Order: sequence, then C-alpha cells, then structure tokens
Amino acid sequence: MGSDTVRIPILKLHNYLLISIQIDLDDQTAIQFQEDLLSKIHESGASGVVIDLTSVDIIDSFIAKVLGDVVTMSDLMGAKVVLTGIQPAVAMTLIDLGIHLQDVPTALDLEQGLIKLRQELEE
Amino acid sequence: MGSDTVRIPILKLHNYLLISIQIDLDDQTAIQFQEDLLSKIHESGASGVVIDLTSVDIIDSFIAKVLGDVVTMSDLMGAKVVLTGIQPAVAMTLIDLGIHLQDVPTALDLEQGLIKLRQELEE
Repeated sequence: MGSDTVRIPILKLHNYLLISIQIDLDDQTAIQFQEDLLSKIHESGASGVVIDLTSVDIIDSFIAKVLGDVVTMSDLMGAKVVLTGIQPAVAMTLIDLGIHLQDVPTALDLEQGLIKLRQELEE
Repeated sequence: MGSDTVRIPILKLHNYLLISIQIDLDDQTAIQFQEDLLSKIHESGASGVVIDLTSVDIIDSFIAKVLGDVVTMSDLMGAKVVLTGIQPAVAMTLIDLGIHLQDVPTALDLEQGLIKLRQELEE
C-alpha cells in the first residue's frame, strides 16, 4: 500500500507485447511504464509492441514526451512499436509539442495494430 | 485523484477479451474488475475471455470468491472463460475454499489460453 505507483500491465502474445492504457497517466505511472516496457522487451525478446491509447482522452507535455521516448527507445532495442487509437486531442498535443511520430505506424485498434505490426516486420 | 479504485485494463482482440492481472488485487479492485468485465462482455459481445494470473502469487478468500464468481457470471452471459498461469498457492487457496473450477479450462500462458479458448468454442 502507501505510495504505490500504478503499473500498466504488459501482455505478451507470441513475440509481441500488448499494452492498453485505460487510465489517466500521471508522471510516475508514465515513467514506471517506460521502465517496465523496456525491461519486458529485453527479457522477452519481443519484436513488436502495440500500445493502445483508445481510452486516453488527453495528455500533457510530460506524458507526450515520455510516450515519444518510449517509441524511440523500443525501436533502439529492436522492437517495432505501433500506436493505436490515438484520439484527436492526443494527436494535437503530440504535434504541438513537436513530437513527430512520422515513422511510427498507427492503426485504429488493437486488431488493426497487430496486422500493421505483422506487415511492418515482414517488410 | 483521491480514493480512485485501480482498474484492470481489459483488451479486446477479435471476439476475445484478454486480461492480465499484474497487481495485488484488493477487494475494491476485484469488485471493480468483476463489474468492468461483465459490462465489457455485454457491450463487446465477446465469446471468450482469457484471464492471466501469472503475476498473482497469492489470493485471499474474498478475491478467490470474486474470481470464481466472475467465471460463473461470464459463463452465464455466454462468454467462455479460460484461466491461465495459476500459481500453486492460488490453486491451493481456490481448492481450500471449495471453489471448484473443474469445468474451467486452464492453460499455461496467454498464448496457450487463446488456443484453448478456440478449441473450447469450436466444440
């Protein structure tokens, strides 16, 4: 109990990791998620990651930066990231802040994200 | 903020729902999960559910009862539940409490759980 940080579950399916963010991310949670995801990529040897943001209505500049970093870092570690369900306000925040995720494939939902990931990895 | 209940994300993949419980369940969280899962089954029309308990080391009698109920209730609503990654201590608690999940298919991990679910639903 006490000052527990909320941890976002990371599901492993075949050689992909699936994450659905369904809570408001505070700074601590976002940082914890970044750490958890990178170690999970390392330990599982996953080749792809789908992060579903359908339930995220709005993000602030800090969270946007962490998200952008997560994508870049995962990529560095050899795991391709697909973002799904990005909402208008989130897209606007990302662009406003100059976090250009141009090379990041996106898709409507988890299913489409997995299909996209498979395509990306086959290329 | 304040007394927020932790909510366990429920991922929808095709017509299945995937849940990975990676935190210690307290009573409130378990009850909230039960509610969330049942409404998600209702709204998504999912035919199957995989609940992964790999990261759950131990459960108390209340949580065990809630879990048993979730399985029965989901079944009533027409969604088949597969439990995966049940650890020894969790299995013991379930049996000690007379929560017999004999008809509930189980599997080692998420992948196996999905395979099992597909088999169950084809029968």
